[in-house]
Amino acid sequence: MTAPWITYRPELRVLDCTIRDGGLINDHHFSDEFVRAAYHACLEAGVDYMELGYKASKQVFQRDRFGAWKFCDEDDVRRVVGDNPTSLKLAAMIDAGKTDWRTDVLPKDRSVFDMMRVAFYVHQTAEACDMIKDAADKGYEVSANLMAVSRATETEIAQALELVAETPTQTVVVVDSFGSLYAEQVERLVKQYLGYVKERGKEVGIHAHNNQQLAFANTIEAIIHGANRVDATMGGLGRGAGNCPMELLLGFLRNPKFKIRPIFRFLQDYIEPLRNEVEWGPLVQYNITGQLNLHPRSAIQARGNPETRLRYVEFYDRILNEEC
Amino acid sequence: MTAPWITYRPELRVLDCTIRDGGLINDHHFSDEFVRAAYHACLEAGVDYMELGYKASKQVFQRDRFGAWKFCDEDDVRRVVGDNPTSLKLAAMIDAGKTDWRTDVLPKDRSVFDMMRVAFYVHQTAEACDMIKDAADKGYEVSANLMAVSRATETEIAQALELVAETPTQTVVVVDSFGSLYAEQVERLVKQYLGYVKERGKEVGIHAHNNQQLAFANTIEAIIHGANRVDATMGGLGRGAGNCPMELLLGFLRNPKFKIRPIFRFLQDYIEPLRNEVEWGPLVQYNITGQLNLHPRSAIQARGNPETRLRYVEFYDRILNEEC
Repeated sequence: MTAPWITYRPELRVLDCTIRDGGLINDHHFSDEFVRAAYHACLEAGVDYMELGYKASKQVFQRDRFGAWKFCDEDDVRRVVGDNPTSLKLAAMIDAGKTDWRTDVLPKDRSVFDMMRVAFYVHQTAEACDMIKDAADKGYEVSANLMAVSRATETEIAQALELVAETPTQTVVVVDSFGSLYAEQVERLVKQYLGYVKERGKEVGIHAHNNQQLAFANTIEAIIHGANRVDATMGGLGRGAGNCPMELLLGFLRNPKFKIRPIFRFLQDYIEPLRNEVEWGPLVQYNITGQLNLHPRSAIQARGNPETRLRYVEFYDRILNEEC
Repeated sequence: MTAPWITYRPELRVLDCTIRDGGLINDHHFSDEFVRAAYHACLEAGVDYMELGYKASKQVFQRDRFGAWKFCDEDDVRRVVGDNPTSLKLAAMIDAGKTDWRTDVLPKDRSVFDMMRVAFYVHQTAEACDMIKDAADKGYEVSANLMAVSRATETEIAQALELVAETPTQTVVVVDSFGSLYAEQVERLVKQYLGYVKERGKEVGIHAHNNQQLAFANTIEAIIHGANRVDATMGGLGRGAGNCPMELLLGFLRNPKFKIRPIFRFLQDYIEPLRNEVEWGPLVQYNITGQLNLHPRSAIQARGNPETRLRYVEFYDRILNEEC
């Protein structure tokens, strides 16, 4: 009898994407102090990977409109983490279609990053495979994050997985971008992903959003069915409804290498003050877009306007009329 | 193939306990207008049962310290719902050890209530069985709610279920009072309960708390494993971390008799203003007591004091020292 709630798998790895996913709320304008505190919290908590941001194209995104964590230039990152002489591995996300990856992803021996996470929609799988190979050739560990999987068909997913399984990526992540999946759908997807990649020695990951207050539950479900790479953020910080909260995840995981106390300190000292500046969490509009398997953009818009942020019925009616 | 997320069971019944569980935050001081609006929201949403409060002993609880919904006198209830000429059934909770049930539970033909929900801890099972029989004899549908089941052993639960199964109760509810259960534990409990009561034609229910943001997920899990009676509250209103949010539950259930729009209206018009007066939800202190399977009282206390409400580390250290 192995009960996940009380046992642990040593091979399970936790990735903190507080700064990367949280950056989507504030255009990546985190202070060095904030990022440094998050880094130390992850380190002390025994988290395995920390994702700091994107390596976004400076052709597409204006350098002065965004904070440093949109681009993750080596100098900016090293100002905070030095040469990272620790066991905490650092990751950056590179988006298909929005990254000058040939030039901006440096050879690993010139970078403080350990992992590149390639984010792509199913129609971008070809570019994603090129990106994965490029990053692997440059010496990085690679993760393939197929986004918005709740909007893709099983055939589309199968076709993408077939191609991705041939690449040198170490991990393929089930990404519930819209926070619309229920546990039984997560189970099905994790099993489908494992079917394509397990025999090649690759791992399956889970990245859940909290629109229906299911991010933590779905992360547990994925773990139960074999996912060994799990994403979370401190305080659930993240765009819209936010992510699986790290403080809940570490309370569930029984590997004694994980310490939850440093997370509570970060929540107290950094996340709570941030709540006065930006809003995230499973608020009603996000419940609605999650239930309807929609991108949260209209919910983000409604929440951002003081006139409309609490007009739930109007929002519901409009979504039903315009988007369903 | 029956996928609960897309199919429905016509026999599944939803109970709204917004006023009853929410009353634990504000000593049951809801205005008639508030309760009337909740009643109409339930009615329009197609909810099956609405629980209005307790029938607490006036020997134990001072009449003037609490709102009307602590006692649910017929006159108070009828002032809001009239004779309830609707299909929405009304329930009151009667606590073992805190209720003058022989006198205060009137014969059904003199009451607007349809159901009595008997709440008891495992050591109160004997009184609970007497209460169940009394309420059934008086003409009510009865539900048996064995509380704090996460702190009882399987043997204790089995002994309680053996006795309760012999009573005329129609339903036995799995009550996760501390919000500490994970899905696999919910599955085990629902199956255990069904083993005792199913062949006698009784139903199993679920009442989940949201300390670990698992109330909705655990409710789904219980449904998947055969629970046909489910509790929820609008906005998740309820003591401490609150309950399974009705707006999430109805978004999941596929029975077209349920309408979610009236719930959004109640959230907008009544729940949001209430947030300025009382606090509830899966806040960090409740995460901690849930993870440690503790009564939320120390968390409620810490949240109630402006000096301590955001001192998470201090709270965590104290709980580890004093309660674990």
